[in-house]
Amino acid sequence: MNTTGTLFRVSIFGESHGVNVGAVIDGIPAGVPLCEEDFASDLDRRRSGARGTTPRKESDTPHIVSGLFEGHTTGAPMTVLFDNENTRSGDYSALVCHPRPGHSDFVAGVKYGGHNDYRGGGHFSGRITLGLVAAGVVAKKMLATCGVTVSAEVTEIGGERERRLFPVVIERALKECDSIGGIVECRASGVPVGWGEPFFDSVESRLSHLLFSIPAVRGVEFGDGFASASQRGSVHNDRLSDAAGHTFTNHAGGINGGITNGGDILFRIAVKPTSSIATPQMTYNFETGKVEPLVVKGRHDACIALRVPVIAEAVTAVALADLMLVARAYGL
Amino acid sequence: MNTTGTLFRVSIFGESHGVNVGAVIDGIPAGVPLCEEDFASDLDRRRSGARGTTPRKESDTPHIVSGLFEGHTTGAPMTVLFDNENTRSGDYSALVCHPRPGHSDFVAGVKYGGHNDYRGGGHFSGRITLGLVAAGVVAKKMLATCGVTVSAEVTEIGGERERRLFPVVIERALKECDSIGGIVECRASGVPVGWGEPFFDSVESRLSHLLFSIPAVRGVEFGDGFASASQRGSVHNDRLSDAAGHTFTNHAGGINGGITNGGDILFRIAVKPTSSIATPQMTYNFETGKVEPLVVKGRHDACIALRVPVIAEAVTAVALADLMLVARAYGL
Amino acid sequence: MNTTGTLFRVSIFGESHGVNVGAVIDGIPAGVPLCEEDFASDLDRRRSGARGTTPRKESDTPHIVSGLFEGHTTGAPMTVLFDNENTRSGDYSALVCHPRPGHSDFVAGVKYGGHNDYRGGGHFSGRITLGLVAAGVVAKKMLATCGVTVSAEVTEIGGERERRLFPVVIERALKECDSIGGIVECRASGVPVGWGEPFFDSVESRLSHLLFSIPAVRGVEFGDGFASASQRGSVHNDRLSDAAGHTFTNHAGGINGGITNGGDILFRIAVKPTSSIATPQMTYNFETGKVEPLVVKGRHDACIALRVPVIAEAVTAVALADLMLVARAYGL
Amino acid sequence: MNTTGTLFRVSIFGESHGVNVGAVIDGIPAGVPLCEEDFASDLDRRRSGARGTTPRKESDTPHIVSGLFEGHTTGAPMTVLFDNENTRSGDYSALVCHPRPGHSDFVAGVKYGGHNDYRGGGHFSGRITLGLVAAGVVAKKMLATCGVTVSAEVTEIGGERERRLFPVVIERALKECDSIGGIVECRASGVPVGWGEPFFDSVESRLSHLLFSIPAVRGVEFGDGFASASQRGSVHNDRLSDAAGHTFTNHAGGINGGITNGGDILFRIAVKPTSSIATPQMTYNFETGKVEPLVVKGRHDACIALRVPVIAEAVTAVALADLMLVARAYGL
Repeated sequence: MNTTGTLFRVSIFGESHGVNVGAVIDGIPAGVPLCEEDFASDLDRRRSGARGTTPRKESDTPHIVSGLFEGHTTGAPMTVLFDNENTRSGDYSALVCHPRPGHSDFVAGVKYGGHNDYRGGGHFSGRITLGLVAAGVVAKKMLATCGVTVSAEVTEIGGERERRLFPVVIERALKECDSIGGIVECRASGVPVGWGEPFFDSVESRLSHLLFSIPAVRGVEFGDGFASASQRGSVHNDRLSDAAGHTFTNHAGGINGGITNGGDILFRIAVKPTSSIATPQMTYNFETGKVEPLVVKGRHDACIALRVPVIAEAVTAVALADLMLVARAYGL
Repeated sequence: MNTTGTLFRVSIFGESHGVNVGAVIDGIPAGVPLCEEDFASDLDRRRSGARGTTPRKESDTPHIVSGLFEGHTTGAPMTVLFDNENTRSGDYSALVCHPRPGHSDFVAGVKYGGHNDYRGGGHFSGRITLGLVAAGVVAKKMLATCGVTVSAEVTEIGGERERRLFPVVIERALKECDSIGGIVECRASGVPVGWGEPFFDSVESRLSHLLFSIPAVRGVEFGDGFASASQRGSVHNDRLSDAAGHTFTNHAGGINGGITNGGDILFRIAVKPTSSIATPQMTYNFETGKVEPLVVKGRHDACIALRVPVIAEAVTAVALADLMLVARAYGL
Repeated sequence: MNTTGTLFRVSIFGESHGVNVGAVIDGIPAGVPLCEEDFASDLDRRRSGARGTTPRKESDTPHIVSGLFEGHTTGAPMTVLFDNENTRSGDYSALVCHPRPGHSDFVAGVKYGGHNDYRGGGHFSGRITLGLVAAGVVAKKMLATCGVTVSAEVTEIGGERERRLFPVVIERALKECDSIGGIVECRASGVPVGWGEPFFDSVESRLSHLLFSIPAVRGVEFGDGFASASQRGSVHNDRLSDAAGHTFTNHAGGINGGITNGGDILFRIAVKPTSSIATPQMTYNFETGKVEPLVVKGRHDACIALRVPVIAEAVTAVALADLMLVARAYGL
Repeated sequence: MNTTGTLFRVSIFGESHGVNVGAVIDGIPAGVPLCEEDFASDLDRRRSGARGTTPRKESDTPHIVSGLFEGHTTGAPMTVLFDNENTRSGDYSALVCHPRPGHSDFVAGVKYGGHNDYRGGGHFSGRITLGLVAAGVVAKKMLATCGVTVSAEVTEIGGERERRLFPVVIERALKECDSIGGIVECRASGVPVGWGEPFFDSVESRLSHLLFSIPAVRGVEFGDGFASASQRGSVHNDRLSDAAGHTFTNHAGGINGGITNGGDILFRIAVKPTSSIATPQMTYNFETGKVEPLVVKGRHDACIALRVPVIAEAVTAVALADLMLVARAYGL
């Protein structure tokens, strides 16, 4: 549901136009040094601003209301709150009868019997990822204590891999009142051998579980991923080069049998184009009973992939911090 | 670890060369008609036999030792056992010092301090998927009561999409003492609107979690998947065509906002080439302290993708049966 | 840890002297009518005020910051916050070196490496139960939809069972700068046959798990409880009187084989005397290295049992609401 | 349901008259030395034999079919099977229409729609505790590595505390075709400070959860338990005597704030008299629609409390082994 993890546990809550969004982060070891400023960098990366992201502006100041004492985590659950400030509920009310294609409007209405908060996507809004980013900051601090770092970046937009051409691709989509998808690559370095709990809690299982909870993610591949379906074993197999378990290559993405092998964990995420577009779309109107054009108003990201890297890092760190604690329980 | 699910819960156990492999399946509704013959078809599909699969032959007879009474499930946990009959432990003992590239040998040795049962891959063997297939048979029975069916097939081998050329591709790999990867496509039909429990238990999250626990899976994509990263929103968005929520297209793979939308759930799985190949591979030998050629003996699948469809169906059915029960708790 | 439940899930957080205490309540069915006023009655019962309860006064106003829309639950997690207003941190700082007997001071210091927020008991404070009471209010609303009610009361204080003598017993303890224990009885009526999920999730297991998480609880017994250890089966067995499953007696406390039998669920809770007393206690001082007298300052309840009934009701409702949802998943 | 634990996880299965009962034990650290003989002592204590226990005789030989290799645990799940040999199904078939008072017959019939295996109590039979005892043996081995031992004994039968008079009390009950209850006391020694995960996973919560899943348990109290409800704080509080955290007394039962304090964990369990008695009981007959005398045939324990100690030890060890692993994750 809205909680994840075995020992390091994150619960998220909030709606786009409610009072607060946030997270309760449980299972943090006591004594991790932390302050609200530590959240600034990742929250800033998540915040919109670049061309192609929503014009909705929020200060996104984290309020830590529990679990922190004299600059350190206490061992008790840490709750981080964010205020929703810049809400414009008027933008959304018509979408109940004329649900936006590609969005959760219709399915959420059916699932929750019409009681879901539909304003701004409600609990399905990208704002819910603020809690994830906050949890990611804490998880990164935990991972840093054993030398693990996580980083992600956009490597492709609309099929274009040349980074300097990204603005051109986005501008073109914006001009045509459309949106565009992209690819995000993520790397976790410094992970020791032995994390991951097969059968069901393989590293890939845990990571993909959280990655696919990020709105707009359509695909996840580790190491050579889909390309490995065309490969021979003689090419794909990573051969060990020394007693530490290093390998000459990293086709596996740093994972064997669901367990980290000491190499970098590498994976790619396919992000679909934003559902909300200003171009008229012919779709069913429950009020009129007809298929009619819908123009989605409101403030949207043209290329949501731009905002995914810091969220991908966050959930990766959350998953790895949990697997780290489990590994420690067994002396690793 | 080795248990998955919220209400419909599957625990698997066993090693390649141990006494039994199997599963404990808990949370099955009482009164589902079932007998050991119901397992035959899927177990037969999982069993090797086709050119390109291992010559190890097992009868794979399911022994239901609990949870079944007078031809129906009882509401108590069902335990299904399979005997390991055709084991040849001598094949594997050398691999402790000279771990097979691409396999779990090295990481399992580190993680379990050398106490893991390394014979035939031990708990990492493909034989562990017998329990999954058994659980899948039960899950499919549960899904059938509300009209849901699951089917998967190999759609690509070694980059070749022409089905009649698959044997050629496999034969070539075999001849060169090599292995080859493939793509498996899976479809779940008849799923009603409203299954899936976002934020963290989106349908994609639950499915990918189990799919990535299947050995050799390197990538999972839903609907248009990685192709959607190059698409525009105006193309990708599935527009509603009627009051039932049908859509003109299915780029999303039957899921919006992590919740089923009534369309077919569609996804593709990238399966890497089998790690075990007879071609000599230069890899580290812990005994000699040198990088030396290793020839993997034993009996192996040249194209493990051939055996994945029934396992992919099984875990898909397991995940959906669990989400079905959760949905029912809320009146869906 | 700080989350409980299978489908109806409650996560609590906060410290006595932090910014907020509260709860995230997940898995609430959408469409339950609810407003902040609905919390008033139970919060008022939990609040101190009676002779024998702490003079610390808090308004305990619930702030619902997510999961509520137009007077109904949305299906998304509901977060309820309470402010800590009347905190006096100066009272507690000396207790780090001279831990209070019977309190968590010493063990929490060891467990959390001295990083726990020791002010007012921190996360071990009775204030943490505010989140439980809030969750209990929601759970009671859910249970009310199928006619289930929960009620608890103090039936014994310091061995005295005559209710009109309770104030006398408490006054005597107060006068002697001491505290006193008590017994709370709880009853859940209207529960249908069939709730509870043996083997491990028997109704007693689930209830006792939550009851023993309430600070100061030392014992829990169902039906005839400890008295049944002296009984004969011919006395203890509840015989069925009709086709609905009614019984002539209720020695079992409404539960057979871990499953509700349609009778009232009945149990008793032993509450120890408050640990914090103003009488000097000879206990180890880590600063001086000697056993020395400690006088616990601050504001305390002389008879904490007085505040337990509404909390016992809350956790009972939380456990039953969860079992209700699970039972529904199976058509009960 | 039928699985318990966070890291050390036990799943049990089986019915009284099915093929096998047993357990899957997951999360055992690799490298624990273990053989089937290690189970003999506790299985023997669980087995009937003494006057007052059922005449059903079973060899109760443990078959370890996975998770063990060369005399050590492997890190993979260990499955232990027991055969049901001495079954007499004819004894029980009449009970479907005329359910035994105090037994699960009626509620199980309703809950599972009549599909439960009613023979010998099915999944509600005491035989299911074989899996628990097996898991307890493994847990005790794990605890022994850090010096923790668990022991339990019957301290009271039918109100009689004089041990040499127990046979007299039992004989009297047997002669009158009746059954009798008892009290079991349990002690865990050597537990270090800091185990237990409040708020919801206090040591008492975890222990009581499992203890109340044992059939026939009606009450659980820690330390002074129900007696503490009559005590003053000045009496009940355990004062620290030295820097190691030792206390002069142990009224708390070795636990403060839900966390172990280094003292012995002490608790008492109330066991009701066996439901199955040969004395005629007037109870509802669903076939005739009348309240009629029922004489329960079959083989039963007159004093089930006699068989509880080893089971209480087992679940205590299971709970503590899990909390030990969690504590280790945090460096304790």
